[in-house]
Amino acid sequence: MNDAVDLDRVLAHVDARRDEYVTRVMEYVRHPSISAQNIGIAEVGVILLDMLGKLGLEAESIPTARHPMILGRWHGKPGAPTVILYGHYDVQPPEPLELWHSPPFEPTIRDGRIYARGIGDNKGQHFAQLMAIEAHLAVTGTLPCNVIVLLEGEEEIGSPHIAEFVREHRDKLKADLVVTADGPLHISGLPIVTFGVRGVASFELRAKTASRDMHSGNYGGVAPNAIWSLVHLLGTMKNAAGEITIEGLQDRIIPPTNAERDAAARLPLDLEGVMSDLGMTHLDAPANRPFYDRLMFHPTLTINGLHGGYGGAGSKTVLPASAVAKCDIRLVEAMTPQDVFACVAAHVAKHAPDVEFVPQGGMLPSKTAVDSPFAPAVITASRLGNGVDPLLFPLLGGSLPDYVFTKILDLPAFGTPYANADEANHAPNENLSLDCFHKGIRTGAALLSELGKMRV
Amino acid sequence: MNDAVDLDRVLAHVDARRDEYVTRVMEYVRHPSISAQNIGIAEVGVILLDMLGKLGLEAESIPTARHPMILGRWHGKPGAPTVILYGHYDVQPPEPLELWHSPPFEPTIRDGRIYARGIGDNKGQHFAQLMAIEAHLAVTGTLPCNVIVLLEGEEEIGSPHIAEFVREHRDKLKADLVVTADGPLHISGLPIVTFGVRGVASFELRAKTASRDMHSGNYGGVAPNAIWSLVHLLGTMKNAAGEITIEGLQDRIIPPTNAERDAAARLPLDLEGVMSDLGMTHLDAPANRPFYDRLMFHPTLTINGLHGGYGGAGSKTVLPASAVAKCDIRLVEAMTPQDVFACVAAHVAKHAPDVEFVPQGGMLPSKTAVDSPFAPAVITASRLGNGVDPLLFPLLGGSLPDYVFTKILDLPAFGTPYANADEANHAPNENLSLDCFHKGIRTGAALLSELGKMRV
Repeated sequence: MNDAVDLDRVLAHVDARRDEYVTRVMEYVRHPSISAQNIGIAEVGVILLDMLGKLGLEAESIPTARHPMILGRWHGKPGAPTVILYGHYDVQPPEPLELWHSPPFEPTIRDGRIYARGIGDNKGQHFAQLMAIEAHLAVTGTLPCNVIVLLEGEEEIGSPHIAEFVREHRDKLKADLVVTADGPLHISGLPIVTFGVRGVASFELRAKTASRDMHSGNYGGVAPNAIWSLVHLLGTMKNAAGEITIEGLQDRIIPPTNAERDAAARLPLDLEGVMSDLGMTHLDAPANRPFYDRLMFHPTLTINGLHGGYGGAGSKTVLPASAVAKCDIRLVEAMTPQDVFACVAAHVAKHAPDVEFVPQGGMLPSKTAVDSPFAPAVITASRLGNGVDPLLFPLLGGSLPDYVFTKILDLPAFGTPYANADEANHAPNENLSLDCFHKGIRTGAALLSELGKMRV
Repeated sequence: MNDAVDLDRVLAHVDARRDEYVTRVMEYVRHPSISAQNIGIAEVGVILLDMLGKLGLEAESIPTARHPMILGRWHGKPGAPTVILYGHYDVQPPEPLELWHSPPFEPTIRDGRIYARGIGDNKGQHFAQLMAIEAHLAVTGTLPCNVIVLLEGEEEIGSPHIAEFVREHRDKLKADLVVTADGPLHISGLPIVTFGVRGVASFELRAKTASRDMHSGNYGGVAPNAIWSLVHLLGTMKNAAGEITIEGLQDRIIPPTNAERDAAARLPLDLEGVMSDLGMTHLDAPANRPFYDRLMFHPTLTINGLHGGYGGAGSKTVLPASAVAKCDIRLVEAMTPQDVFACVAAHVAKHAPDVEFVPQGGMLPSKTAVDSPFAPAVITASRLGNGVDPLLFPLLGGSLPDYVFTKILDLPAFGTPYANADEANHAPNENLSLDCFHKGIRTGAALLSELGKMRV
């Protein structure tokens, strides 16, 4: 039978079940699976095992030191490529709860979007991949290529065990490429294909300046203030001009290639639209940096949270004895979390020896060559699924554990994100548009067909 | 009858009722009266009215725009001085609740101390004044001098209406001096008499850099971060050397007189004891400033709280769009909250025009001459109540609305604090030692006797 005709039938099957898929994904994301708080992970693992088994995949849950990997394999097409479809079934904590317009784990449709924690990042996206597999099997009784579904339960806490897992289970992960559906489309609504991601290194800075909080009148001027300690320390780490001033941090940066710069320069930009959508009056410092350079070619130092002292109603004349800042640094090639932690530790020891530096999760950056032999199949699938040519991103700003594929398994790794740009992942009112979800299933179906045309 | 004999009989009466007073003050502080949260204020006002009436004072509750003033007057000794005994019946918010070893409004005795919110600041202290009045009346049927008890319900929110109240009710407040029992004894345990207080100006800095929180990977480098805005702004307001760098803020400071410097220099200092009690390894910057100079002769800029972004368990790669810092500045003569707010507003407008500056409560500083004709009576009362000479403080670090007495009513105003130095006022586990409470009642009784020896 003709490949193109098969895909047409599969896409027709998908289009006819648009509402059914919505109902089913809402049932899926109703179950919390918050890795940072260890809530619901095991329960959602069981749901996925059942789901993969019913699809006809060889399903198994493989323990790690914390949350298990869920694996589903299908190897019925010898000679065709094998694609690893990676995703993660854990979600971010939903706090602050009071800013949600509907409860994070009671999925709600408003204005053509599903609102729920995890609907965009990442449960709605890998659920779309599973529906693509289901559609092929339902229509043709087979898949065009071999598939390994790999779903992680620790992505939102920095994927602490996936590297070890990949090293230990190379035999179960023999493949030709990796495709991940995570993150958002371009702000314009155009689909994208990505070839790399920034890495990340998260840490806490903990200041404790006395054994108890004090009265700011009785002790102001005498007792050191934990919040001031953090303010002054942070001020030495990044200046108001936006320059990271941690010594040595940027020593190992590999500048972007000309091809990467060219790809970034070709990307469209509706700066006014971005600013308006996010309610921003200006970009972050430094002011003169090209937009995509900010996301692709430079590390960042983000304060994720800073809390100390009184935060209730009215005023309170307290002098706080403790405060904590949570931070992350985004990494570009060839920075490593290990190097970054060493630089930050040395910086803190020099500038604020009383402040405790606590390294947390980290992840290496990843890059795949834009001329990989699998790139055309991935790009074509995106066009077939969305009806328009995708934009090509040499790098994404966010972090995914693609390095385990590119640096440990030595495979090309591509991203085909399905979510709307304003999905509000990691924030209150996370959402996924019904249209994006549907096109995601179509793209997934087309990917399997396109890969099925290749021989390895 | 002989004045000294009368006082001996009154003090014997007080000594015999030591346990009874403890039971009664615990019943009093059991009732919350949190002005910032508008909890329990009216109820405690009613309790006080009843208490003052039963003492035999002419009691009334006089409304202000927010929380009422409770007034109790006794004018049975023409020719003798009239003393205003000022206190406040509102308390600080008890948060963070999880750090209390017993609930803040369930008074508990442990190791010779009563633990409860407000027991030291200030309900236990003005309750001691009332017991002193009760004892005189019980033993002699009269008071040695005229008394006006003035209890405020808004001290912990910056006394926004006491100035207006004092101006409007000058007729009810005709007096010769003011005595306030609030704040702690010296860290050595010695009693103190104070002649002035620093002022205060509280404000918030609110940063809002976008309409919603974002993912630090997808927007890190692009979107400004509200916490970084505050960190960099605050860094321009006070440097790591401890110098306040807000332009114009210190222009109106009157340097201390030689007499004040001498008095400060005579005060004992157990620096190691202070550091050890508070669990501090070093004093606040600048390092070379004499200890009492820090509390008496310099303004401070305290960050009371800073909150933005994620503060829960684990890490969260969020880029926060909003953050708030609560601050207070302590004022020395002749700074005013009005001037300070103008300086800070101009500074914020110059350095971080996107940050919102929100002035809150303020209070003027206050000073009384150390050679006031009423000083000997106050000092003698402290010695008689405590059995030891008090230390004389030209200024206290904390803020009390004494300026309404010294600057509006033009009266000398003295402080005779009764609480132990580690009372933990404004902090979890606020406490008052049973011994301090008892000596406070004795000092109050002696004060009335000493003033009764004077004629005006």
